[in-house]
Amino acid sequence: MDFSLPPALDDIRLRTRAFVADHILPLEQDPGARDEHENIAEPALARIRALAKAQGLWSPQVPLALGGMGLPMVGQAAMYEEANRSIFGPVCFNCAAPDDGNMRLLATVGTDAQKARWLAPIVSGEVRSAFAMTEPAPGGGSDPAMIRTKAVRIAGGWRISGRKWYITGAGVAAHIILMARTSDDPRKGLTAFLFHKDQPGWEIVRRIPIMGPEEHGGHCELAFDGLEVSDADVLMGVGDGLKVTQIRLGPARLTHCMRWLGLSKRCLEIAQDYVSQREGFGIRLADRESVQIKLGQAASAIEIGRLLTMKAAWALDNGNHAKTEVSMAKVQVADTLHLCADTAIQLCGAKGYSKDTVLEWIYRYARQARLVDGASEVHAMVLANAYGRHGDGFWSWGRADG
Amino acid sequence: MDFSLPPALDDIRLRTRAFVADHILPLEQDPGARDEHENIAEPALARIRALAKAQGLWSPQVPLALGGMGLPMVGQAAMYEEANRSIFGPVCFNCAAPDDGNMRLLATVGTDAQKARWLAPIVSGEVRSAFAMTEPAPGGGSDPAMIRTKAVRIAGGWRISGRKWYITGAGVAAHIILMARTSDDPRKGLTAFLFHKDQPGWEIVRRIPIMGPEEHGGHCELAFDGLEVSDADVLMGVGDGLKVTQIRLGPARLTHCMRWLGLSKRCLEIAQDYVSQREGFGIRLADRESVQIKLGQAASAIEIGRLLTMKAAWALDNGNHAKTEVSMAKVQVADTLHLCADTAIQLCGAKGYSKDTVLEWIYRYARQARLVDGASEVHAMVLANAYGRHGDGFWSWGRADG
Amino acid sequence: MDFSLPPALDDIRLRTRAFVADHILPLEQDPGARDEHENIAEPALARIRALAKAQGLWSPQVPLALGGMGLPMVGQAAMYEEANRSIFGPVCFNCAAPDDGNMRLLATVGTDAQKARWLAPIVSGEVRSAFAMTEPAPGGGSDPAMIRTKAVRIAGGWRISGRKWYITGAGVAAHIILMARTSDDPRKGLTAFLFHKDQPGWEIVRRIPIMGPEEHGGHCELAFDGLEVSDADVLMGVGDGLKVTQIRLGPARLTHCMRWLGLSKRCLEIAQDYVSQREGFGIRLADRESVQIKLGQAASAIEIGRLLTMKAAWALDNGNHAKTEVSMAKVQVADTLHLCADTAIQLCGAKGYSKDTVLEWIYRYARQARLVDGASEVHAMVLANAYGRHGDGFWSWGRADG
Amino acid sequence: MDFSLPPALDDIRLRTRAFVADHILPLEQDPGARDEHENIAEPALARIRALAKAQGLWSPQVPLALGGMGLPMVGQAAMYEEANRSIFGPVCFNCAAPDDGNMRLLATVGTDAQKARWLAPIVSGEVRSAFAMTEPAPGGGSDPAMIRTKAVRIAGGWRISGRKWYITGAGVAAHIILMARTSDDPRKGLTAFLFHKDQPGWEIVRRIPIMGPEEHGGHCELAFDGLEVSDADVLMGVGDGLKVTQIRLGPARLTHCMRWLGLSKRCLEIAQDYVSQREGFGIRLADRESVQIKLGQAASAIEIGRLLTMKAAWALDNGNHAKTEVSMAKVQVADTLHLCADTAIQLCGAKGYSKDTVLEWIYRYARQARLVDGASEVHAMVLANAYGRHGDGFWSWGRADG
Repeated sequence: MDFSLPPALDDIRLRTRAFVADHILPLEQDPGARDEHENIAEPALARIRALAKAQGLWSPQVPLALGGMGLPMVGQAAMYEEANRSIFGPVCFNCAAPDDGNMRLLATVGTDAQKARWLAPIVSGEVRSAFAMTEPAPGGGSDPAMIRTKAVRIAGGWRISGRKWYITGAGVAAHIILMARTSDDPRKGLTAFLFHKDQPGWEIVRRIPIMGPEEHGGHCELAFDGLEVSDADVLMGVGDGLKVTQIRLGPARLTHCMRWLGLSKRCLEIAQDYVSQREGFGIRLADRESVQIKLGQAASAIEIGRLLTMKAAWALDNGNHAKTEVSMAKVQVADTLHLCADTAIQLCGAKGYSKDTVLEWIYRYARQARLVDGASEVHAMVLANAYGRHGDGFWSWGRADG
Repeated sequence: MDFSLPPALDDIRLRTRAFVADHILPLEQDPGARDEHENIAEPALARIRALAKAQGLWSPQVPLALGGMGLPMVGQAAMYEEANRSIFGPVCFNCAAPDDGNMRLLATVGTDAQKARWLAPIVSGEVRSAFAMTEPAPGGGSDPAMIRTKAVRIAGGWRISGRKWYITGAGVAAHIILMARTSDDPRKGLTAFLFHKDQPGWEIVRRIPIMGPEEHGGHCELAFDGLEVSDADVLMGVGDGLKVTQIRLGPARLTHCMRWLGLSKRCLEIAQDYVSQREGFGIRLADRESVQIKLGQAASAIEIGRLLTMKAAWALDNGNHAKTEVSMAKVQVADTLHLCADTAIQLCGAKGYSKDTVLEWIYRYARQARLVDGASEVHAMVLANAYGRHGDGFWSWGRADG
Repeated sequence: MDFSLPPALDDIRLRTRAFVADHILPLEQDPGARDEHENIAEPALARIRALAKAQGLWSPQVPLALGGMGLPMVGQAAMYEEANRSIFGPVCFNCAAPDDGNMRLLATVGTDAQKARWLAPIVSGEVRSAFAMTEPAPGGGSDPAMIRTKAVRIAGGWRISGRKWYITGAGVAAHIILMARTSDDPRKGLTAFLFHKDQPGWEIVRRIPIMGPEEHGGHCELAFDGLEVSDADVLMGVGDGLKVTQIRLGPARLTHCMRWLGLSKRCLEIAQDYVSQREGFGIRLADRESVQIKLGQAASAIEIGRLLTMKAAWALDNGNHAKTEVSMAKVQVADTLHLCADTAIQLCGAKGYSKDTVLEWIYRYARQARLVDGASEVHAMVLANAYGRHGDGFWSWGRADG
Repeated sequence: MDFSLPPALDDIRLRTRAFVADHILPLEQDPGARDEHENIAEPALARIRALAKAQGLWSPQVPLALGGMGLPMVGQAAMYEEANRSIFGPVCFNCAAPDDGNMRLLATVGTDAQKARWLAPIVSGEVRSAFAMTEPAPGGGSDPAMIRTKAVRIAGGWRISGRKWYITGAGVAAHIILMARTSDDPRKGLTAFLFHKDQPGWEIVRRIPIMGPEEHGGHCELAFDGLEVSDADVLMGVGDGLKVTQIRLGPARLTHCMRWLGLSKRCLEIAQDYVSQREGFGIRLADRESVQIKLGQAASAIEIGRLLTMKAAWALDNGNHAKTEVSMAKVQVADTLHLCADTAIQLCGAKGYSKDTVLEWIYRYARQARLVDGASEVHAMVLANAYGRHGDGFWSWGRADG
């Protein structure tokens, strides 16, 4: 039993922290460094990415042999949290969604040829990527069995038609992973394909406007009408689509938690600064009992989220699927992010509701946390069944999965 | 004991409802009808206001003799709720904040001359108004004792210097009520002044960018440097500023509740439509137990909010200050608005988070509800002391105030 | 729109309040006045009941013609709440469950002969009654379709076998209403029977020990093995059992709410007294912000519960079934009772957890509120469907039911 | 970073688990094995304790050299949780409060002579102990500065007068630690004394009746009127009373958490069994979405509580005071115990509210969790200040305390 971070990982954490403080936080208040979608603008980003890469703080989730830092999940957790003390953080270290999940996936299941062609340019930062699975009604949203995008067999490959939406990053992605139906088999009916944005047969219908600030490339609606993909660009086997999704999803969900913890921490920092100075009715806000209770609850929520996330990361590092652990972390940390942003806004009052701080950016961003990668309600069954999963009780100290 | 609305008021409610459905809701999805601050654009607004005025649905809170509908508070509650089924509703009927509170105030405490000069043009819709009280730190936020804006005696009037912020509607207001310090007396140190935007000695420093959609005229930061106001433009007596604030605040808080209930109802309507159609995992969303529980809780919250609001309105109509009743309504309905917007977004999923519906507009707007007119925490003392206020217990059925 | 109680009803409320203060509250701390099931002992009870009857505070829910006070539901709400400021209150005024629901039912659907034989002695206080419907697994709990107790046709009547449990008051009841299956028809398969405790063919298997203090007669498990009931003792028609249940249940649920509000108010009174005196860390508890917030939330919950209860009572008085209104009240007031007892215990600390006050009595009693008459979860569907029930929206001001 | 339990500790955990299942759980349903205070009766207890001692599952918190198992806090956490799957568990392994905290304290700060005289008989199980600190109003409750019990210097010792209450276990304790005021110094005014029950000058005024089942010896009110204690029986130095309290309190709070987790787990086991079998409205309860959500939330709360408790235990084992960690665990696990008992009762319905299971025992017991060892509100300040405690943020991965 050991809750400490190994020194090598703590060193990375501290270097990431310093990098964020020195190079990224100052950009948040610089209107020129922000694009029209409220994210870091490309020129500033290019400069910061070069710097991060030079310092070896780059692609933490990718094996050393493939050009990344080769961090275990617990190391990623520590680094991601620090990276996300800034709203601009993750993309600067090439660990923003959906690229990080796509890289992890390709590194895990891609063939050598696929790694060379599709993965390497994402790792190096030359291109961005997307993962196109979700469909508008009546297609497949949270239920993959409803996916309607069809891939029809042609000579040497597949011809794909259908519609996707809410595809994060699609507006700037060059390498896209696409999920389509290749048969009606309930377990083996889906297949994952790789294609390049310049291939014909598809288009971006629109960039869907959303409440929150956007990842680079936004959330797009895509139409496929005859996109042709060769057999070499099938990821894993035909019919393995669901498996691809599951392999990608566990760690991807957990990296969301890691990022959200960083943003949560940032919210409390802003609130602490404010209540330490602002007075009302003859008393400093920080000295009010109601303020202390709110801050205490938010601080506890962060600590809890971190423990759940670290436990799940450790379980993944030890070869478990950790489905329960990831679900617990996801549900809790999504709530924590909202709690911390909401608490900080309430404590900062009108200033918190204004755009004078990044709190409102985070508050809007936070609203999607309970929706992405499985609505909180969808995790209920997983968690309800978790109890008694092991022969000797809910949680075996010695084995995370069994 | 009678929970029914008198027929004459119910008729106004139904006509308002029909007007919103026929003339205002269609504009919500028309990009051309929306200005850059996400509110209804002036040309569309002018057309709708003329129509509403022609139908006699205009200035409900102003006495008949002064050109309004002369509705009691309970009638306003019914009409406001219907008006606010649209995000564009209140301003169309000249019952948007802060105009409605300012009109009610001037009709109550203004001299005849003040009514003619300052009130009449707001009632007719010729001009807009603002109420400038809140100051940036270290000035007076929720604590009026901290107000620093100073009025110094000059011949025949006052000379005012200081700074205000978050002044709703100031960007388009012509008639402005300004709170300033005229002495250090803790109870009688503040005085309310009236001035016209074209008077020299003040300026709008900036329109403060906020998370939410804005009322017309935004939330502005104002600097006063020598604004001169004549004695005729002092509202009530010198030293009566706190009294002016209290007279304005009770009903103004309650009209927020009325509007928020309309928006809350609208959120549930959108969610109901969605869950009635969308399916997943082989079941219609509306048939899922978790969905029904969420909708049931939200529907209960609206009913509760309406009862609290109506009780407070009735108490005000019967000559009580109803401070406790208004505080209870304010705290509860602010939470209800968030709950309903949040619930609807969760149920509509990605669509709810997108700008394809008005839900995200309402969600962002809702965040200020727990901040304006007294943070929810500030109402605690009022409510804690409410219990046992009457000789025979917490709430005397026969007397709302005592 | 009128939230005031008519003077005649307010007078009854005040007389009930005074009676409780003068005659019942003093008994709470008298160990000799309490029986082994933590309720008022029979000798003390007999004395108090005679006094209440003499003052005309007796059987409020029964029509004047049948010997009661003939109060409308809104009047009952006011009187019940006051009666239940004491844990011993309701039975003293002959308005304890299940007698009050049984009296209301018999007065509504009984034949004249049935009223004379079965109802009159309950109204006068000569006998007590019970309503035997719930069965142990795998019989009918919250789902009446699962009821297994069978009535078989014999000459001139019915012969009944089966098992019931959790039958409130059965230990002292002389007149019992019994629900049994007379056919397999899903809508018309149940029938209600009346029998006297001295009839052969049944027995009390055990008095089920429970967490909370008990109503007189406890919660019993009953076995039926050949109880014979004549046709004259069928309540309403054969096959009308479900209808009988529904007629009884609406008002019965609401009277729970009325009682729970009285207990809730009592909890706050005890807490207020305590925090007004006790100090810690140099400050009176009543002056702590966290204490004020807790008390304010509890006081709001009571006010909300009272409004929901009164609205439902008024709707019932006006001939509506008020199913939605009753469900909303039941769910909310059950939570309120727990909240108030829990809050008061937390504020009173060790003293609140001890038996030195009635708080712990109420806390244990409160736990059944979310279980009886439909678990809170079961009301979800009712409430979810409430929205949009009327042509013009969730809640029509003019009509409570439609 | 390692979330696994070392094999030696896991072995103890599994042996404890088996012991509970084999020897203690069967006694819960045996009325003869329960005393009038709802705890295990002395004859059964004596038999079980002998068995546990024989298996080496005895006094886990005491060093090997002093006759205990010498477990680190993380090992205690694992064993305590298993021990408390039964409501009778802890005392069987000599790890019930307040004995375990007293043993830990005496082992830590006692002189060799004090260990021989006062500690050894508790470790061996010959005698029980108590810790007398809390006083009735207006004395010292949660605020030790208000302690009024006075010790006056006499030749070779001290003479003590005053009053204590809520002293757990005092009814059966032979060795008692008593806190009294020896001066008015705000930091050094309290001193801890040791005395034997047979010494003259004190008496048990009453055993305070409480809502919940009682530890052996109950919660007593004590009067001191001239108890004389020799200098040899002063624990630590004169004036070190507050220090004694703090040394005892941190680990003692955490052992509450360990026990509460075991009870929480037990509640879920009972609920799982019930919902797996019981049906209603044509569906097994375990298949209802609302049931799954409830169980999932409760299971998550247990996992969270366990992580907080283990983290704090690990920090204590590593020489930190872990004040923040213990506070977080205490607040969260107290809520978890209530949540799990409450959830299980709601799912089991009438059966859950009856005494047919141990749920109601646990529910009543749980209510004191938010009161003992610091009301949840009192921990607020500790937690609010936790954020930013370390130079580089709220929680330093590498160092638990700093």
